[in-house]
Amino acid sequence: MEAKEISQAVIGRLPRYFRYLGELKDEGVERISSHELSERMHVTASQIRQDFNNFGGFGQQGYGYNVEYLYHEIGRILGLDKEHNFVIIGAGNLGRALGNYLNFERRGFVFRGIFDVDEGLIGQEVRGVRIRSMEELEEFVREEEIDIAVLTVPKLSAEGIVDKLVKNGIRAILNFAHVDLNVPEGVQVENVHLSDSLMKLSYNISRYIRENEP
Amino acid sequence: MEAKEISQAVIGRLPRYFRYLGELKDEGVERISSHELSERMHVTASQIRQDFNNFGGFGQQGYGYNVEYLYHEIGRILGLDKEHNFVIIGAGNLGRALGNYLNFERRGFVFRGIFDVDEGLIGQEVRGVRIRSMEELEEFVREEEIDIAVLTVPKLSAEGIVDKLVKNGIRAILNFAHVDLNVPEGVQVENVHLSDSLMKLSYNISRYIRENEP
Repeated sequence: MEAKEISQAVIGRLPRYFRYLGELKDEGVERISSHELSERMHVTASQIRQDFNNFGGFGQQGYGYNVEYLYHEIGRILGLDKEHNFVIIGAGNLGRALGNYLNFERRGFVFRGIFDVDEGLIGQEVRGVRIRSMEELEEFVREEEIDIAVLTVPKLSAEGIVDKLVKNGIRAILNFAHVDLNVPEGVQVENVHLSDSLMKLSYNISRYIRENEP
Repeated sequence: MEAKEISQAVIGRLPRYFRYLGELKDEGVERISSHELSERMHVTASQIRQDFNNFGGFGQQGYGYNVEYLYHEIGRILGLDKEHNFVIIGAGNLGRALGNYLNFERRGFVFRGIFDVDEGLIGQEVRGVRIRSMEELEEFVREEEIDIAVLTVPKLSAEGIVDKLVKNGIRAILNFAHVDLNVPEGVQVENVHLSDSLMKLSYNISRYIRENEP
């Protein structure tokens, strides 16, 4: 049952299902109804059924879902049955934090390289991975079959780096630079714009105060 | 013109408008049509007009929008005309990276405190702000009128900390812990689930390969 034309909104919810099913599995739960799952996840049961129907429904509703099966199927749909090699560009605090983030490895994302322009950082290690000079980036991405680049560089350097990554076959970019990247079709981008998240919080604080504390 | 019942999807797009308008302003652009803005932002002009209509439309379309006015209005709607005090919980690499992130300050988010359980970190400084013990957290949040907490702690510690924050009047949480937080109504949460973003990239890589490189 392959997924075509499934909306990014549905895709965006799959990791959360995957996370909850992983927790249920760890707790030893074997079957769960869409109703129970909906209570646990604070979404409607009908949303869950609709989302799952995009992938063929994953089994009979009357008996509930088989947790182990569902966990593995969603993992497979997410492409987590394959390993993905990633590099981090920028070895500042954020880059180093991400290099040390063990959760990625557990999902099959393998930390392979980290790059910086700062001579003072080059040669140091992040979780056993040596910080390399930016001059080595292109060859490394090409030769080591890197799929994903995590971009933690200033806005102004981002564009030039993205061109190099794309030219050397990168498939996806997790972008922390506060700029929208220009990439060709076929290169996937997820933006993590932290200032935007703070602004959204700021809006919702103001709205709540306006509506509830006049 | 106050905003009621505006969808979170629209709110989620406001920071991006704000960012582009800030860039236009810096470039000295005085007026821009929804058409020009749409080309620059890679969204449809009709989307822009629909979004802006939620807030009264921001001026005549025939003559285009006044950039400076629109920038300030969107900033005001986002609550950026007020300052927000924030603290960071967790002084690991990620917490320190966020403390050093100057962009936040420029938007009116003021870095006031950072907390950790690690005795070895307490007393060190992040951009001039002393790392404090978690024992000081509750009083600090209450006395220093902290609006926003940035949570960079492991999943298992998150819940207990959130209870303390809520009890002491926190209004919003930027959550990096890989868990959904339970907060009362009136406390805003934005999640930054980095593993989820990687999984979404993984899905889109697989889909692209399946559809284009059979």
